[in-house]
Amino acid sequence: MDERPTTVHAAERLAARRLASAFGLPAFQPGSVWLAGAGPGDPGLVTLLGLHAIAEADVIIHDALANEALLTLARPGAERLAAGKRCGRKSPRQADISRLLVARARRGERVLRLKGGDPFVFGRGGEEALALVEAGVPFRIIPGVTAGIGGLAYAGIPATHRDMNHTVTFITGHDAGGRLPELDWDALSRGAPLLVFYMALGHAGEIAARLIAAGRAPDEPAAILGHATLDAQACEITTLAKLDEAARKAVAPALIVVGRNVLLSASLDWLGALRDGKRLLTADQARLSDAS
Amino acid sequence: MDERPTTVHAAERLAARRLASAFGLPAFQPGSVWLAGAGPGDPGLVTLLGLHAIAEADVIIHDALANEALLTLARPGAERLAAGKRCGRKSPRQADISRLLVARARRGERVLRLKGGDPFVFGRGGEEALALVEAGVPFRIIPGVTAGIGGLAYAGIPATHRDMNHTVTFITGHDAGGRLPELDWDALSRGAPLLVFYMALGHAGEIAARLIAAGRAPDEPAAILGHATLDAQACEITTLAKLDEAARKAVAPALIVVGRNVLLSASLDWLGALRDGKRLLTADQARLSDAS
Repeated sequence: MDERPTTVHAAERLAARRLASAFGLPAFQPGSVWLAGAGPGDPGLVTLLGLHAIAEADVIIHDALANEALLTLARPGAERLAAGKRCGRKSPRQADISRLLVARARRGERVLRLKGGDPFVFGRGGEEALALVEAGVPFRIIPGVTAGIGGLAYAGIPATHRDMNHTVTFITGHDAGGRLPELDWDALSRGAPLLVFYMALGHAGEIAARLIAAGRAPDEPAAILGHATLDAQACEITTLAKLDEAARKAVAPALIVVGRNVLLSASLDWLGALRDGKRLLTADQARLSDAS
Repeated sequence: MDERPTTVHAAERLAARRLASAFGLPAFQPGSVWLAGAGPGDPGLVTLLGLHAIAEADVIIHDALANEALLTLARPGAERLAAGKRCGRKSPRQADISRLLVARARRGERVLRLKGGDPFVFGRGGEEALALVEAGVPFRIIPGVTAGIGGLAYAGIPATHRDMNHTVTFITGHDAGGRLPELDWDALSRGAPLLVFYMALGHAGEIAARLIAAGRAPDEPAAILGHATLDAQACEITTLAKLDEAARKAVAPALIVVGRNVLLSASLDWLGALRDGKRLLTADQARLSDAS
């Protein structure tokens, strides 16, 4: 195979190929579909398999949420099709996307379906995978870092923390019809010390009201995390009682986080420290500092 | 900088550096600590930031769970220290690991703390990060693909699936003392359609008994997933009633998965299809096939 660089990003594609080969990654077979997660936004959070897939694909059918910078790694002749869904804009129906994946694979192409975050975490990857099974098209799933974990980490909010929570619960903020799904709020209130809602900005008020009605304290810490892991990341710390008001000022896409772990961000905002020179203090250090 | 390859893996390190540069990843500053997740096992599931960190670190303090193949990317002079915890083996205490991170950073080294999965998902990353804050050591968190998402995907079990679950709950199977943590089993039973337990093999019987006592059906599908995402991956499909028996035959580390999503693995076992030539069928196709 001729491996001489021929375009601006050829050297990066060769680098991805070199690493894929060193770690024994599978070849992207013509006529197959790879359903991959691109991670929450920071291109550094893409997986090596994800990079490999982008560099080898004949056609990339990607969501609006996937970081566009990653697509520069695609081959010069590779086709890129935007299939992302965003409120207010017309976007292909799920069935159309599944049909497209099947049709392109049957043409003998290497088909990459690239989604933001992880394809199986509120990403409808299961539906697309079942359509491939039904059509007899071979496929591979490439997990990605989900925003509910990676985004929280970038905001200094550990998804789990000793003595704070033994469970973490991820919840979608809207069902197929865009409504807040039917949930057992009493059970969530009692059994889920940390709740992470995806795509829930429009339902923030109802979420807060339901949780408070089910027994969570109005002054329980909450956060709205926008543009997670990107340069534009913004994390607004608030409380359940003030969540609706804070959500009205926030910009989608955003995560809503409810639970005591949110308080750790005061000490663990490492991105603020690196980016803005913020001085980090543990809770004990902060108390001493306030007292002096 | 002299970038000529000088050792067997120098070309791969250069490749990682080339990609890190192309995507504008941050420099690994001497005197800082990066707390990184290596993903669930398959080296293809490491992030680009994780690879970059391994290639640039002066010292790598890694868990037993991190894929050892990834460490071949380390610089020839880099020091590698195993700090992993495994049942039955003596391992450093958490406080000792934190002290080590601080001491090495203060020497001016680039210190990589590499954990399996994600550092903030039952990985005690928050404790180590707080120790760095207390000592005034700058740090960065590098999320990873957690086994509860990536491992399930490799077994053909979507962590979420439309019309099946709007929430997914991750639970640690043991607290700091190794016991099953205190949990509100009634709330979990009612509010968590899909439960994913980490490090819970030894408590499988108690988990099943608690869930059944709280109202979950004894014939509810469950899975025990060992060596997730590795060549040795083994997924045993069972039921809550038979979970304890299945767990006695399983080998740690393993995940326990409880919920209807487990049934999708019959159709979505893409790894079995690629690796063993297994023929995948949707549920409808399987019914037709059985009837004919």
